[in-house]
Amino acid sequence: MSKQIPVIEEILSANDLIALENRKLLDAHGVLAVNIMASPGAGKTSVILRAIESLRGRLRIGVIEGDVAGRVDADKVAQTGTPVVQINTGGGCHLDAPQVQSALRQLPLSEIDLLFIENVGNLICPTGFALGDHLKLMVASVPEGHDKPLKYPGMFTVVDALLLNKIDLMPYLDFDLDAFRTAVRALNAEAPLFEVSCKTGAGIEDWVEWLIRQCS
Amino acid sequence: MSKQIPVIEEILSANDLIALENRKLLDAHGVLAVNIMASPGAGKTSVILRAIESLRGRLRIGVIEGDVAGRVDADKVAQTGTPVVQINTGGGCHLDAPQVQSALRQLPLSEIDLLFIENVGNLICPTGFALGDHLKLMVASVPEGHDKPLKYPGMFTVVDALLLNKIDLMPYLDFDLDAFRTAVRALNAEAPLFEVSCKTGAGIEDWVEWLIRQCS
Repeated sequence: MSKQIPVIEEILSANDLIALENRKLLDAHGVLAVNIMASPGAGKTSVILRAIESLRGRLRIGVIEGDVAGRVDADKVAQTGTPVVQINTGGGCHLDAPQVQSALRQLPLSEIDLLFIENVGNLICPTGFALGDHLKLMVASVPEGHDKPLKYPGMFTVVDALLLNKIDLMPYLDFDLDAFRTAVRALNAEAPLFEVSCKTGAGIEDWVEWLIRQCS
Repeated sequence: MSKQIPVIEEILSANDLIALENRKLLDAHGVLAVNIMASPGAGKTSVILRAIESLRGRLRIGVIEGDVAGRVDADKVAQTGTPVVQINTGGGCHLDAPQVQSALRQLPLSEIDLLFIENVGNLICPTGFALGDHLKLMVASVPEGHDKPLKYPGMFTVVDALLLNKIDLMPYLDFDLDAFRTAVRALNAEAPLFEVSCKTGAGIEDWVEWLIRQCS
């Protein structure tokens, strides 16, 4: 005799509830939000600055910068004339939905098509906290080594797209690109992988075209 | 009228209590333990491998490798004939004292002078969890950029020594060494800073001599 098995729906955490509110607010204003995650120094701000440059006149950009401390990155973005809010977590190892909610209140959402949310530099903790974003993007970088998917599988698994940055340094490092691609594909069959250099601009246009398609 | 103000001593967490046990066990065997922390891909394993090579016949080394997943690093260490235990945190963003306690039980402590504990790649969370180590060492790397002390001040503040790795890449990057040194010194006046390249071996001997002095 078969019995009906009770299914308990996931009870949303306070963070998840606020993430849903963030998503509704973004959708109401037609803003696509991209959560950018990476190790410290992989080049999150650099890929944002490259996109701002390339998308000028094509999409209106906004930025939320997340850091433990400081406003180095927000200052760089502000110099481009792009609306930006800096969140300092004060020791926290990831952004959370309430922090993003506060930042959204200070941005001119009706004048933004694409919002980059630069998470705290950390390959582990940010994956566990919903922000309300539409897409998750990871920036890996050549100097970190090709073995990172094996060591930090969680991040590589959850993202919708990957950038491999700093490919201009390939000649000076023992980076096995085939091993990296194979390890990424073992964890994530779908996410496009863009191999780029923020220094030379190589590969940036392919990534930017992908961003434009996500917004349309 | 002045009143005696009651002072409540800090109540040690379960983690701190086990960290104290680890320290006692290490001291009983005359082992100096160094907790190595860094971003993913800064070169923690590479500096350990360089030290093993340089210290052969001078100090007996042991290694605990901490990673979210995988055993890539432990395999590299094992190839040198050095006793090594791999801890997989299974998603955890830092090592904790109970994990280290388990690893210590599997190491031949009476045959080890210097134990490297390679923490999970993360510039934030590992600083909050005592392991029982005697010294904390941070590995920064040139490709991460000179602004890291401004963004992750906690790590730079707590460490007893710093390595700046991958200095061989300096010609290919816009790394401001003076700005880095100044930012480090603003947070940490005491810790020695060793500028090294695990690729070329530059600077390694100075760091290794410092390790030997800590053990004597």
